[in-house]
Amino acid sequence: MKTEEEIKIPNATAKRIPLYYRYLKTLQESGVERIKSKEFSQLIQVPSATIRRDFSHFGELGRSGYGYDVSYLIEVFSNILNTKVEKRIALVGAGNLGKALLNNNFRRNENLNIVCAFDANPEMIGQKINGVTVRPMSDMKELVRKEGITTAISTVPSSHSQEVVDQIVDSGITAILNFAPGRVKVPEQVKIQYIDLTTELQTLIYMDENFTSRKHFNFSNQD
Amino acid sequence: MKTEEEIKIPNATAKRIPLYYRYLKTLQESGVERIKSKEFSQLIQVPSATIRRDFSHFGELGRSGYGYDVSYLIEVFSNILNTKVEKRIALVGAGNLGKALLNNNFRRNENLNIVCAFDANPEMIGQKINGVTVRPMSDMKELVRKEGITTAISTVPSSHSQEVVDQIVDSGITAILNFAPGRVKVPEQVKIQYIDLTTELQTLIYMDENFTSRKHFNFSNQD
Repeated sequence: MKTEEEIKIPNATAKRIPLYYRYLKTLQESGVERIKSKEFSQLIQVPSATIRRDFSHFGELGRSGYGYDVSYLIEVFSNILNTKVEKRIALVGAGNLGKALLNNNFRRNENLNIVCAFDANPEMIGQKINGVTVRPMSDMKELVRKEGITTAISTVPSSHSQEVVDQIVDSGITAILNFAPGRVKVPEQVKIQYIDLTTELQTLIYMDENFTSRKHFNFSNQD
Repeated sequence: MKTEEEIKIPNATAKRIPLYYRYLKTLQESGVERIKSKEFSQLIQVPSATIRRDFSHFGELGRSGYGYDVSYLIEVFSNILNTKVEKRIALVGAGNLGKALLNNNFRRNENLNIVCAFDANPEMIGQKINGVTVRPMSDMKELVRKEGITTAISTVPSSHSQEVVDQIVDSGITAILNFAPGRVKVPEQVKIQYIDLTTELQTLIYMDENFTSRKHFNFSNQD
């Protein structure tokens, strides 16, 4: 395997690695040991030529007629995704969802750790949840610097989302996972990702209604 | 606009509608009023020829040089996704995450309603959360039929995920949103979707580290 330092990866390839990693993990969990670029292409909706070119950056990974070794690829991508270095996370919003995240605290992934929690509600301040004390928003800037935190998870509802995200950005955090689906403005150097449960559920129900019972549509088999 | 009954949509097109809908909503929330197939293609990573062919099934939607009207497309796809008919949902697992979902109960979407909640923990049974009473798992089959429920959300951890999903399937439910990311087995006619917060967070951190500071990689601009 080439070492990280030796690998020169185009931007577009690098952006696809989390997608590859996610689906390879799913395949592995389903017991799949190897996969051809064509099958993988159908699964993830990326052209197989793109997949082969992307994978070629990481050395000799596939063999014609055999396909790619799933666990080997996971190892390579896991190294690239740097999943073994501890990431220190701040939680903003310690309501029911925040509590659920703190209690779970990504326990199956040693490298992901929520180390601080913040809330605007005075009644929440000082509560200890799974070893983490809830602090006032005004402490965020100082604690983020002191604890070396670069990532935040916000469970604050849409109505206060922009306001809270502004405070998170002001504290120096550059990566935000936001459970309020309404889009907020962040500076260019800040990465924000949304968890939109409503859209996930709508997609699921739509797929169930139309691809199981075929009640609502006149589906043809073309395409 | 063509009515639903008149539209004949190929399977492959139908499967892309939730993706189109999701991104168009995002564009709308960001203030974008129209979009060209080429720009949309770059955003969602679907070839622009595919997008134009897909959209052509819904009548005259785009004009050369002008692009597509975002709010019109949202209206068309919203009708197709049938977002105005009430969907009755069962929640399985009334812990912190379950409580958070019940308290929110998709309030911004009138058509999505959690109408029942179930838990295996005797201490939870009988508790009322946002108007919904938590019931024992043994009541599920009967209530699902009585209440006309077709969709379930499971917040049960991975360790009991397969067991609970089996019970959900046995009750007659055909669509499951699962917050335990470990893959479980379901019959072919059952649709299951996973919310994998760990992977979402890893992707976010990876994008932040590599596309902001460019510390770890030697990115080139090729591709």
